[in-house]
Amino acid sequence: MTSPEIDALTQALARLPGLGPRSARRAVLHLMKKRETAMAPLLRALERVNEALAVCSICGNVDTTNPCGICADPRRDARLLCVVEEVSDLWALDRSHLFPGRFHVLGGRLSALEGVRPEDLAIDSLIARVAAGGIDEVVLAMNATLEGQTTAHYLAERLESYPIRLTQLAHGLPVGGELDYLDEGTLAQALRARRPVA
Amino acid sequence: MTSPEIDALTQALARLPGLGPRSARRAVLHLMKKRETAMAPLLRALERVNEALAVCSICGNVDTTNPCGICADPRRDARLLCVVEEVSDLWALDRSHLFPGRFHVLGGRLSALEGVRPEDLAIDSLIARVAAGGIDEVVLAMNATLEGQTTAHYLAERLESYPIRLTQLAHGLPVGGELDYLDEGTLAQALRARRPVA
Repeated sequence: MTSPEIDALTQALARLPGLGPRSARRAVLHLMKKRETAMAPLLRALERVNEALAVCSICGNVDTTNPCGICADPRRDARLLCVVEEVSDLWALDRSHLFPGRFHVLGGRLSALEGVRPEDLAIDSLIARVAAGGIDEVVLAMNATLEGQTTAHYLAERLESYPIRLTQLAHGLPVGGELDYLDEGTLAQALRARRPVA
Repeated sequence: MTSPEIDALTQALARLPGLGPRSARRAVLHLMKKRETAMAPLLRALERVNEALAVCSICGNVDTTNPCGICADPRRDARLLCVVEEVSDLWALDRSHLFPGRFHVLGGRLSALEGVRPEDLAIDSLIARVAAGGIDEVVLAMNATLEGQTTAHYLAERLESYPIRLTQLAHGLPVGGELDYLDEGTLAQALRARRPVA
C-alpha cells in the first residue's frame, strides 16, 4: 500500500550490503520522518559523491578525485606498494593507518572456478608500475584463501625478475584468537611461522 | 584518508537505523563500485521521495501524496478505524493486509516520564474524525507496553460517549511463542483471555 516511489526507495536501500527488506523499510520511514536531519543530508552527500565519483587511474581505488587521495598524497612513501584484491581491502588497510605506502587494486583474484584469468585483473598495470622503477618493496596483501594465495604466487612469479623486495602479510593467530576455536590451517601456519620469544 | 564527500555519505548512512559505521562504509563502497546499478537508482528514488514527501492531513501517515494512498483508496472500509502510536505501526499493520479499514496515527504515546500529554498527540483530530460520523468501529492498536495501554485507556474514556464499537488488539501468546520463554505478563494475559477449544 506504500506508493511506488517509496517502494523504489525501499528496494534500492534493501540491495545495499548489510540491509534487508525489513531494515530498509525502517530506514525509509526514518528518512521520511526526519526530512531535514536525515533525508536532506543523505541526498546531498549522495549527489556529491555521485558527481565526483572517480576510479583512480593509477591504483584502481574509488574516490572523489583522480588520482585518488592516497596516490596524490606526497607524504605517502612511493617506494612501498601494497597489492590488494579489492577496494574494500585497500580501505580496510588504510583505516588501520599502519601502512605508509601506496596501493594497487587487482579488482579480484585468480579463480579457475569463476573463470577469472590474469588478463581479467589489473596485473599488467601492476607490472608496469614496478617496471617504471622507484619501488623498493611490494607487499602482496591477498586474502588468506586458496584463491588469494594462488594469486599471490602468480604475482610473485611475474615480479621475481624485478629488483624489489617482495613480501606478504604474516599468517598466524588473529589478535584475541583462542587456539580452541581456530581452524587447523591457521594453527599450522602459526606453528610453522613460530618465532623465538623476545 | 577517504575524501570529505565520502565521509559525509558514510556518516549520513551510518545514522540510519540498522546501520553502523562499519556497514555504512561497506554500503558506500558498494554504491561507488556499482554506480549505475546501485548508486543511480538510490539517488533517483531518494530524490523522488524527497520531492513528493507529504504527511497525510487526515491520518498522519507519511507518503508521497496527501491524502495518503490508504485514505484515498475507495476500497478501504471507511467505517473501520485503527488507531496506532506511530507511522511504523501503521506500516506494519498495513503490510499484513489483514486490516481493511483506515488508520489514525497519534504520533506517540502518553508518557509522564517523557512529558507527553494528550495535547501533544493527534487526539483532538481523532475525536473530530469520530464525531464527524460514519465510523462504526475504532480499534485501539497501541503497543502492549505500560504507556501504550495507558494511552488506550485514555482514548477509551474520550471515545466512550460516541456510538461506536471500541475494540483493542488481543493479547496472548505470539505465534511460535514457547511458554518457557515468555514473560509472566504475557502468560497472565493469555490465561486470563483463555477461550474454549473450538
